[in-house]
Amino acid sequence: MPSVSQKGRTMPQSPIRKLVPFAEAAKKNGVKVIHLNIGQPDIKTPKVALDAVKNNTLEVLEYSRSEGSEEYRQKLAGYYAKNDIHINAEDIIITTGGSEALAFTMGSIMDTDDEIIVPEPFYANYNGFATAAGVNVVPVTSYIDSNFALPPIEEFEKLITPKTKAILICNPGNPTGYLYTKEEIKKLAAIVKKHDLFLVADEVYREFAYDGRQHYSILQEEGLEEHAIMVDSVSKRYSMCGARIGCLVTRNQEIIKTALKFAQARLSPPTFAQMASEAALETPQSYFDNVKEEYTQRRNLLVAELEKIEGVKIGNPQGAFYCIAELPIDDADHFAKWLLEDFRLNGETVMVAPAAGFYATDGLGKNQIRIAYVLDRESLKRAVNILKEALMSYTHSEAM
Amino acid sequence: MPSVSQKGRTMPQSPIRKLVPFAEAAKKNGVKVIHLNIGQPDIKTPKVALDAVKNNTLEVLEYSRSEGSEEYRQKLAGYYAKNDIHINAEDIIITTGGSEALAFTMGSIMDTDDEIIVPEPFYANYNGFATAAGVNVVPVTSYIDSNFALPPIEEFEKLITPKTKAILICNPGNPTGYLYTKEEIKKLAAIVKKHDLFLVADEVYREFAYDGRQHYSILQEEGLEEHAIMVDSVSKRYSMCGARIGCLVTRNQEIIKTALKFAQARLSPPTFAQMASEAALETPQSYFDNVKEEYTQRRNLLVAELEKIEGVKIGNPQGAFYCIAELPIDDADHFAKWLLEDFRLNGETVMVAPAAGFYATDGLGKNQIRIAYVLDRESLKRAVNILKEALMSYTHSEAM
Repeated sequence: MPSVSQKGRTMPQSPIRKLVPFAEAAKKNGVKVIHLNIGQPDIKTPKVALDAVKNNTLEVLEYSRSEGSEEYRQKLAGYYAKNDIHINAEDIIITTGGSEALAFTMGSIMDTDDEIIVPEPFYANYNGFATAAGVNVVPVTSYIDSNFALPPIEEFEKLITPKTKAILICNPGNPTGYLYTKEEIKKLAAIVKKHDLFLVADEVYREFAYDGRQHYSILQEEGLEEHAIMVDSVSKRYSMCGARIGCLVTRNQEIIKTALKFAQARLSPPTFAQMASEAALETPQSYFDNVKEEYTQRRNLLVAELEKIEGVKIGNPQGAFYCIAELPIDDADHFAKWLLEDFRLNGETVMVAPAAGFYATDGLGKNQIRIAYVLDRESLKRAVNILKEALMSYTHSEAM
Repeated sequence: MPSVSQKGRTMPQSPIRKLVPFAEAAKKNGVKVIHLNIGQPDIKTPKVALDAVKNNTLEVLEYSRSEGSEEYRQKLAGYYAKNDIHINAEDIIITTGGSEALAFTMGSIMDTDDEIIVPEPFYANYNGFATAAGVNVVPVTSYIDSNFALPPIEEFEKLITPKTKAILICNPGNPTGYLYTKEEIKKLAAIVKKHDLFLVADEVYREFAYDGRQHYSILQEEGLEEHAIMVDSVSKRYSMCGARIGCLVTRNQEIIKTALKFAQARLSPPTFAQMASEAALETPQSYFDNVKEEYTQRRNLLVAELEKIEGVKIGNPQGAFYCIAELPIDDADHFAKWLLEDFRLNGETVMVAPAAGFYATDGLGKNQIRIAYVLDRESLKRAVNILKEALMSYTHSEAM
């Protein structure tokens, strides 16, 4: 019998998915599971985006251009200009989600066994894209005690080898909620210039920066023209994860030319979703103001409630809609499974994402979980209360 | 300055795209270019599919499941049953186009430098997926004189090495229009079983089999349960190339489990397009009858008109909507460029795809072109007439 590839065998499973069967079993038994584990926002998609698709008059659903429709790319450049990111439509390739932008980036800049340095904890699917591309993620650890700030540049330099092709950051961070400062971006700019590396930034949470903080894009940093590759997506910005539209943006025309070849091989990004994404650019500012206000309040509530639980440590999430919490337990995998299998409070339990899967270094994050605050405040409050009661019951019953 | 990867440098450009700048220049000069080069059908998308999207009532455009929505996969299994392909919803992973199904397949069964044997000429983007995955396409040549039938099995066996993981066919064939017989599929089944290989079939043109011929799927062949991986797409079937919905179908659960990890890393296929694809399954049979009748007439007209041109040789296209034509010239690349730059008949010219890009063996197909008959008959007739006049003018002017 022919067998799957080594690549297929070692392809990592998403840490968010591993516990899904346990959640499904709980639901079958009539338990209400509150999801703190997934980044699917409950926020409504802008009406203007949905209406564009509803009112379309296509008779033949044709391929679009491989790099995305000219109109959309033009308007998208305008969106970036409003965010003080000045690029041209020619610097953009529209992709099927931010995921594909990352896959094209890795393919365009890395060969088999090449290395990409990523501050950990990081978005777990980076592992999957790396495995698929046959390249290696080299982690540099950031810590909850310093709020997951950029590790010292010396730590990066220790890891640079002839195989290192890039540094990849997520800003604001999933799963950390950390927003890199302008100074941190400048430090990264200096090191990639010094060592002739690419700087890849996943900026899909750009709009989600709280407390008056300003997001600083790698594309705003002068002198990085040939180094900076930015990955973006409409998924979180407009709460339209199901569109599957993202983009790759760089002023490096060699990269654009190369990524375009990857784009042409897969023909084109989805047409309906591009319509929705183009229309979404007309979303009024009030939508973002409301969303930001809502997430700020959720974040505040989550942090306040978590801080009331003895033994729980959290960072100070400044962006995105995630936070890492350190719990007074040894094994978050076991705890998360136990929550789904054995714990109920008034017929409810919570599902959390064990954080170990967001670290590449073995053994790190074992007592941490990632919480996505994409629920209404009432549910969020109930969820944290369940967590609190569960921790009391767990630490006692399991004799940790 | 950091540089693009070797992979990126060697990533092939689609032979269909290479001439686009020349076509655009011609159009700018007011020349009408008739496209024989692209497989974008002019046939209308079924209304039932378009209406499903227009009438959607989504408020949040959420991720779907990574393997595709349960409802769609269930109904899709029903579609296959009607085509005498008996599989379960669990044997299906919905992908972003047939392209992604091929990428997942290569990732799941092949490691760096592994080999996949493909009868040439073949769909040129197979080269792109192979390069992206870091694997090698090994061609086995089929010939216009035998209508691009399956090469003798001994020719395959000569090419099998310890690195060979699979044989990949496109049935009916793009760019050949050849439809493999049941006997040919049985020969392939025997060889993959003997050598423990996978048999991958791109069957996206299943519905396009003419003259009463029946398509025979690799999934209909008994004993291939662990070997057969079928790649499919809604693009051509329902003339909805812009949806970007395809699927990977196999009874091999190890492959399903592995491909699902690739699917989870990219989160989900596009939601709107899945709606359209699910609804498209309700397309009445009359739609397909009309489409098949239309393509049969186009094929007949194309073949008849081409046969009138002295020195032109063509296969007997039995399926899909392509045909390879051998021309009385030395260099189809040069001829195709010349058509766009220098030749006009009543202000019109034609764009064709030079066939060399569909061969992996250097030097083959240099006097051949691929013609896609996705135009109305009137345009098609005019296009062939232009080709005829152009060939006379070219062979004289260029002193071949």
